[in-house]
Amino acid sequence: PLAFENERLLWTLPRRRVDDHKFSSGHCLVISGDALHTGAARLSALGAARIGAGLVTLGGARDALLVHAAHLTAIMLAECDRPDDLRPLLDRRKINAIVIGPAAGVSEDTRQLVLEALASEASIVLDADAISTFAQEPDALFAAIKARKNPNVVLTPHHGEFSRLFGEIAGCKLDRAQAAAKRSGAVVLYKGADTVIARPDGYVAINGSGSPNLATAGSGDVLAGMIGGLMAQGMNAFDGACAAAYIHGLAGRRYGKPGLIADDLPGILPDILFELSI
Amino acid sequence: PLAFENERLLWTLPRRRVDDHKFSSGHCLVISGDALHTGAARLSALGAARIGAGLVTLGGARDALLVHAAHLTAIMLAECDRPDDLRPLLDRRKINAIVIGPAAGVSEDTRQLVLEALASEASIVLDADAISTFAQEPDALFAAIKARKNPNVVLTPHHGEFSRLFGEIAGCKLDRAQAAAKRSGAVVLYKGADTVIARPDGYVAINGSGSPNLATAGSGDVLAGMIGGLMAQGMNAFDGACAAAYIHGLAGRRYGKPGLIADDLPGILPDILFELSI
Amino acid sequence: PLAFENERLLWTLPRRRVDDHKFSSGHCLVISGDALHTGAARLSALGAARIGAGLVTLGGARDALLVHAAHLTAIMLAECDRPDDLRPLLDRRKINAIVIGPAAGVSEDTRQLVLEALASEASIVLDADAISTFAQEPDALFAAIKARKNPNVVLTPHHGEFSRLFGEIAGCKLDRAQAAAKRSGAVVLYKGADTVIARPDGYVAINGSGSPNLATAGSGDVLAGMIGGLMAQGMNAFDGACAAAYIHGLAGRRYGKPGLIADDLPGILPDILFELSI
Amino acid sequence: PLAFENERLLWTLPRRRVDDHKFSSGHCLVISGDALHTGAARLSALGAARIGAGLVTLGGARDALLVHAAHLTAIMLAECDRPDDLRPLLDRRKINAIVIGPAAGVSEDTRQLVLEALASEASIVLDADAISTFAQEPDALFAAIKARKNPNVVLTPHHGEFSRLFGEIAGCKLDRAQAAAKRSGAVVLYKGADTVIARPDGYVAINGSGSPNLATAGSGDVLAGMIGGLMAQGMNAFDGACAAAYIHGLAGRRYGKPGLIADDLPGILPDILFELSI
Repeated sequence: PLAFENERLLWTLPRRRVDDHKFSSGHCLVISGDALHTGAARLSALGAARIGAGLVTLGGARDALLVHAAHLTAIMLAECDRPDDLRPLLDRRKINAIVIGPAAGVSEDTRQLVLEALASEASIVLDADAISTFAQEPDALFAAIKARKNPNVVLTPHHGEFSRLFGEIAGCKLDRAQAAAKRSGAVVLYKGADTVIARPDGYVAINGSGSPNLATAGSGDVLAGMIGGLMAQGMNAFDGACAAAYIHGLAGRRYGKPGLIADDLPGILPDILFELSI
Repeated sequence: PLAFENERLLWTLPRRRVDDHKFSSGHCLVISGDALHTGAARLSALGAARIGAGLVTLGGARDALLVHAAHLTAIMLAECDRPDDLRPLLDRRKINAIVIGPAAGVSEDTRQLVLEALASEASIVLDADAISTFAQEPDALFAAIKARKNPNVVLTPHHGEFSRLFGEIAGCKLDRAQAAAKRSGAVVLYKGADTVIARPDGYVAINGSGSPNLATAGSGDVLAGMIGGLMAQGMNAFDGACAAAYIHGLAGRRYGKPGLIADDLPGILPDILFELSI
Repeated sequence: PLAFENERLLWTLPRRRVDDHKFSSGHCLVISGDALHTGAARLSALGAARIGAGLVTLGGARDALLVHAAHLTAIMLAECDRPDDLRPLLDRRKINAIVIGPAAGVSEDTRQLVLEALASEASIVLDADAISTFAQEPDALFAAIKARKNPNVVLTPHHGEFSRLFGEIAGCKLDRAQAAAKRSGAVVLYKGADTVIARPDGYVAINGSGSPNLATAGSGDVLAGMIGGLMAQGMNAFDGACAAAYIHGLAGRRYGKPGLIADDLPGILPDILFELSI
Repeated sequence: PLAFENERLLWTLPRRRVDDHKFSSGHCLVISGDALHTGAARLSALGAARIGAGLVTLGGARDALLVHAAHLTAIMLAECDRPDDLRPLLDRRKINAIVIGPAAGVSEDTRQLVLEALASEASIVLDADAISTFAQEPDALFAAIKARKNPNVVLTPHHGEFSRLFGEIAGCKLDRAQAAAKRSGAVVLYKGADTVIARPDGYVAINGSGSPNLATAGSGDVLAGMIGGLMAQGMNAFDGACAAAYIHGLAGRRYGKPGLIADDLPGILPDILFELSI
């Protein structure tokens, strides 16, 4: 299988046309954690919005949404308290990409939400707790991924989450990411200083754009949202994951000094997008 | 009837005089959606304030106002929970322009609020749900518009809302906007990449200042507020709608990069106003 | 009596010394309106903080303070629900300047708070509703002012509030301000495009630094807070009122474009202070 | 014992390596005050985050956390309502530095929290109310400090707090700081225009980087957080306190104009860190 350095020739960013309206750029839903754990999903939502999704909605319980309501204005809110609420919401709001996991909680509700999401036609990013919640039954997750009509699913584990889901796999990080993608049927973005993105068919890219600035709480949540935002705009899972990882890395570098916190990242994305569009 | 390209020679922006006080620049009321849908009205209110209205008030239910209270400082809040609350509020606060529709909900309350607003002497912008709520009885809306003493009413439908209210009308977008303005008695700002603004007497302008950057959630809410803010300052409905569309388009261009979200727009308006004032 | 153009030779701004600590720069209390009317007091508090008061506290009912709590970090909060709460608060926190009036409500509570404040040793700014609440019995207010040990009291009426408190007075605005200062025993800052500041002994200054940009909701609230902040730092009432009016006017000019809202003003003050300190 | 001017040759700032992840940079917990007193702890948390801690969590009662939730996104929240909640929280989240004191309240709960914290293996900053709460029994505090395995404890009293804890000590400020460090077993950062940092073995540094700009409410809270953030990244108590005092002073100077409020400080830190890293 082919291995590439992740760079801007590997994928093409969506470009708006003169007659686009907001729905042409897709609608990304991010599932929120509870009222004391809203920040992670908010970072994902801001990442999705700043990477260009036409609409972004945060879904969650009412008290969590009221926390988001104190922060957000153009990003929308929708009650989605139980897994059963998801499908009607997707239909009602024409949602075509979903991010689940950031501070979602390792719980049966999260597990059910993931399965509901996978049963839909939207493109899906599974991060953090959405991954950990399947640690005891990874095959149930992989079966649900492989049964989908829309093949675009991205898993974004860091090292601990990777081991929880895939157990011990032999070989270098690249080998392990390839094996995990093949086994799961999803694109696997295996995070770290040396982020590796692997496709189920073995195609793999290594991202070198990162910066130790990005080793800060919430940084990965922004990345998950960026992938969701790019898939909402029509990119496939592998290209979206590669482009998001590349741009996320550049954003960490562009901040240009120590002391970056994840709140800084979404606002840097437009500058990076502009440079990549020249 | 005459058709113009929308440009800065077509209208004159209000200019403050040395002895103006805040009430000289008018007071614009924006009706809020409920507590989980406040963002749209807030964008309108910020648009109205940044385009120069002397005072801006958000009206709504107490729990929605408390969400706004966590965001806003100079923009004021007033309980306006039922349609009956509107008229006393208008009188008490000397309100001369009203924006209804952004995330207001398609409901009987919204319908009644629109009729109460139209029965007042204020200039009116009807956007989004305020339009959709009359889909079943457009003639009731048009009759209320035509019965007004103050003729300044602007409807700001996008394509779906236009069809809901006016049904199928033959001809190009320009023809359809003209027919809709004539039928409704209001200025019709028919949104899209090619926004058309039509006056009931057939006078029409085509706006070309836009940018696909503006194809993002909440962008139209800012525009509705800008029209309200300009009418609060004494512009008539057609001039206000044309000027707002022109400036809104420039703001989208001025942002100058991908990744614009509607939150960015109000803060860009002062720069555009400055350039137009030179 | 002498009349001056208000300019920077008329007063001296406080300057911090190398060994100052936060209490050397004084502690200014601003009384808040209720939970749906917090913005005005917040603007005052920010004005007081940005003009250099060492500590600023907002006092009010718990639900109003929780709204402020969603906005503020370095500005402190203290429950002050009934007029009786004021004096213990002043002692406990070493408060030496108080601003009452912005969106305080025309009520018996406001009236009592004003009288409690005047009975203390702090310097006092009475604005807006704190003025209007004495429309029926101005002499009770004036007697309380004249009975004070600390003579530093500033009234900041706009035209309507001036007439409510002082009735019709013959002569030009300058004459009227002088008469009002004499009658009330307070420094009277009579707002408008041509703000006049008068001292009970007839000394008067006319401020010409303003800009029609400042004719916007909340602008006067910032001014009231700036006066309180300067008196907290030890300026007398007349000098504080003159300096605040001058700097407030420059801030409106410095914004340099249309579309200023009162939220912009506090953040501009440090630049003006820097220029005046060179 | 040796006395130094505090300067950048006296300590070495942590520097991220290419393969660092967020936990390599440590996790700093800041204990919050109650719902009406959250600002101080928030300033500490922002100071800790901007100085480079990989993760920062605010611990407190649910209603206080909900106030923080309206402000913060990347900084995390954890219920820590009673002293008993602390130890499980430290373990669960791998916390290696704790800041207690800013607006914590002088109370038995605060006293117990301090003792629980000292009984853990984390590095500790005790500021403000955490110091005052031991005014009646300083030796209990000093015994708990001396019994620790991890010797890194910093006390950050201003003049009043110093006297409350250590009573009257003869000599100049430098002598008093040295005696206090020896007696308490902690590094003592004795605040003021002439901040002195003393180590139990008599080693002492005098900080001259400050500015009277810093004499403003909340400034010391930022400093306490910065020390916690540096210890989370592995600096020892003396080096962390010296580096934080030096950088905090530069931040006050760099603001460069009057009118600084403590909210401004955290955002200035990355620029200072960048300059110190060149």
